[in-house]
Amino acid sequence: MQKEHIESLARLKEQFQKLPGVGPRSAERMAFHILREPRSSAAQLAQAILDVKDKIVHCSTCHNLTESDPCEICRDPGRERSVIWVVEQPQDVLMLESTGLIRGLYHVLMGHVAPLEGVGPEHLTIDSLVERVRACGVREVVLALNPTLEGDATALHIQERLDDSGVRITRPARGLAVGSQLEYASLGMLESAIRGRTPM
Amino acid sequence: MQKEHIESLARLKEQFQKLPGVGPRSAERMAFHILREPRSSAAQLAQAILDVKDKIVHCSTCHNLTESDPCEICRDPGRERSVIWVVEQPQDVLMLESTGLIRGLYHVLMGHVAPLEGVGPEHLTIDSLVERVRACGVREVVLALNPTLEGDATALHIQERLDDSGVRITRPARGLAVGSQLEYASLGMLESAIRGRTPM
Repeated sequence: MQKEHIESLARLKEQFQKLPGVGPRSAERMAFHILREPRSSAAQLAQAILDVKDKIVHCSTCHNLTESDPCEICRDPGRERSVIWVVEQPQDVLMLESTGLIRGLYHVLMGHVAPLEGVGPEHLTIDSLVERVRACGVREVVLALNPTLEGDATALHIQERLDDSGVRITRPARGLAVGSQLEYASLGMLESAIRGRTPM
Repeated sequence: MQKEHIESLARLKEQFQKLPGVGPRSAERMAFHILREPRSSAAQLAQAILDVKDKIVHCSTCHNLTESDPCEICRDPGRERSVIWVVEQPQDVLMLESTGLIRGLYHVLMGHVAPLEGVGPEHLTIDSLVERVRACGVREVVLALNPTLEGDATALHIQERLDDSGVRITRPARGLAVGSQLEYASLGMLESAIRGRTPM
């Protein structure tokens, strides 16, 4: 990349490059896009960036992102309050909600156990989940964590913590991804499909 | 994409999607990145966006982007004032400057003639170029426009406008791109290389 001698332009490129997936060339194209746009459009983008920081908080019940505490889902009287779907991050709530199949509540852990990155169970919202289960008459906890090593380790830890609560603990089914081809299935996918085979 | 029920987050995704090369998934990743960052980082990005709009103007001499008018290059006493390199856009100045080979001044047209998009010569800074050539003792004008149909049409128009000024009009050499392979050369590249062949 050529040296930028306009200070504010250099700074904007640098800032854009901090965003995920933005390299030097994209950052340059974005910066020149802002330069060409009317000031009002640039101001809208700047304001939108500040708004998410200023308006969004974590729901004090489920820890999902929200503009009002408790969040829309926790406040919804139509929700089944005895089932809690535990997920790793707010994006997962969006994904599950998009199916229209979930009638229960959520609990967002804000990550997974990752010892190498210094993330222990105490950094997640597990205490608050245990508290909810004890206090709120929960019948079922669905551990909808990612089917990965870290997700499974986290699920195991939660299972141990809820062991004496008498709550039913489940997890989403694992097996062949619908629409995929056996030929290209991973060993893990095949293993879960074979062990978990069900009558037709 | 799933529906976003947090208004400020939805608005930020929408704003990010207006940037060039940013689709719905990237916009979502960027928005969640902002959410995770400390507020001070988000504020820096927002400020950088506003700064380029508030601090950058066009140089009244060469029309390049600058934070001070006239720009750094036009002000530089070490520059050869009798040669003007004419380019389409500010990015091209950066690119030429990065070679370290240019000792003259620049003139940024702010586009090229594009009748289908409603851009005529009167929308470019051609009048101002003609004025500079007449007033400032310019010996040579290098038309460093893109080697495209639009660039060539624009160059031809400028050549006609400068016809009676007696200034020397040149353009950068065209031919085989250094490092490329003949096998993959375009017809246009080959044609300019063959017609413009030079003694070894």
